[in-house]
Amino acid sequence: MPAPLKIVVVEPDQARAQVITEALHESGWADVTVIADDSSLTRTLDDIDPDVVLIDLRNPRRDSLEALSETSGARQRPVAMFVDQSDPELSSAAVQAGVSAYVVGGLSGERIRPILETAIARFGIMSQMQSELDAAKQALAERKTIDRAKGLLIHAKGLTEEEAYQLLRKTAMDQGKRMIDVAQALVTASELLR
Amino acid sequence: MPAPLKIVVVEPDQARAQVITEALHESGWADVTVIADDSSLTRTLDDIDPDVVLIDLRNPRRDSLEALSETSGARQRPVAMFVDQSDPELSSAAVQAGVSAYVVGGLSGERIRPILETAIARFGIMSQMQSELDAAKQALAERKTIDRAKGLLIHAKGLTEEEAYQLLRKTAMDQGKRMIDVAQALVTASELLR
Repeated sequence: MPAPLKIVVVEPDQARAQVITEALHESGWADVTVIADDSSLTRTLDDIDPDVVLIDLRNPRRDSLEALSETSGARQRPVAMFVDQSDPELSSAAVQAGVSAYVVGGLSGERIRPILETAIARFGIMSQMQSELDAAKQALAERKTIDRAKGLLIHAKGLTEEEAYQLLRKTAMDQGKRMIDVAQALVTASELLR
Repeated sequence: MPAPLKIVVVEPDQARAQVITEALHESGWADVTVIADDSSLTRTLDDIDPDVVLIDLRNPRRDSLEALSETSGARQRPVAMFVDQSDPELSSAAVQAGVSAYVVGGLSGERIRPILETAIARFGIMSQMQSELDAAKQALAERKTIDRAKGLLIHAKGLTEEEAYQLLRKTAMDQGKRMIDVAQALVTASELLR
């Protein structure tokens, strides 16, 4: 038995929806919600908060592919997209839009399970990399502000760098604030008073 | 016709190698090199520098999967891995090892082309994110050194932050060095002289 998953399936064709649902049930996944079109997708996702979204797009066009990636929250959760035909530009657009699995011509019963499991693993790696990137960018931005504040203190009060750092740190602790907020206040004040 | 690609295929089974080569030829890719086992893989990759590597692993084990991802340079170029059966741990290990496509039970002729094209797109995104992450981490590390150097100048010479920055910048230009190298020299000197 696989790990339990809440799955939302977007499939306009009722016969195909039936096949997909059965394949998911046979794979050991019982918690499957099918919606026929994407007009109710946002609300369904808010209600259910699924672990993975499976979208059968059949013959994708670039704009509908990108719109569906956005609506299904391809950057917030694993989204697997199945199409019957594609081209390199569409594949590239899907991957760029954050789709975790883009499968051409492969919507057969026994292949659904490994595809979803790989999509979940892929999503995990991508979002981990994205978090690291966001954290590094934020650290850099905060560092710039804190260093401007330190520079102001070093110059104005004749402190060493270490003393300036400790002064910022102590002020933040005394005021129950974060260092970045104290530093930002100091930088703003210095710009106002210049 | 697709974009021309140099493809290396790792396939021990001669009959399957034939099927894969024909599928690639039919997809419009003529530049295909097949090797039967991975003992010559490193040398082949050095010689050919392919655009994509296709590996048929059939029944993967975690250690051989990770070793092959490493040998095939899954972080340096797109690697598509085909297996006949898998499990969530193996899928996850493949994705973690940087494999750009991990396809279970899908080594059929007409599906090879979109799989390789999606793998190439996926590899492009992953390596772009990795470059951004590396650049952000390096910027942060360099910033720390430059700011320590600025702090030393501000304190020692009573400069403002802006003056300290300009002094570092001018010194670097005068000496034909990068600012980070001048900053590093100053930080090192100050530690030696402390």
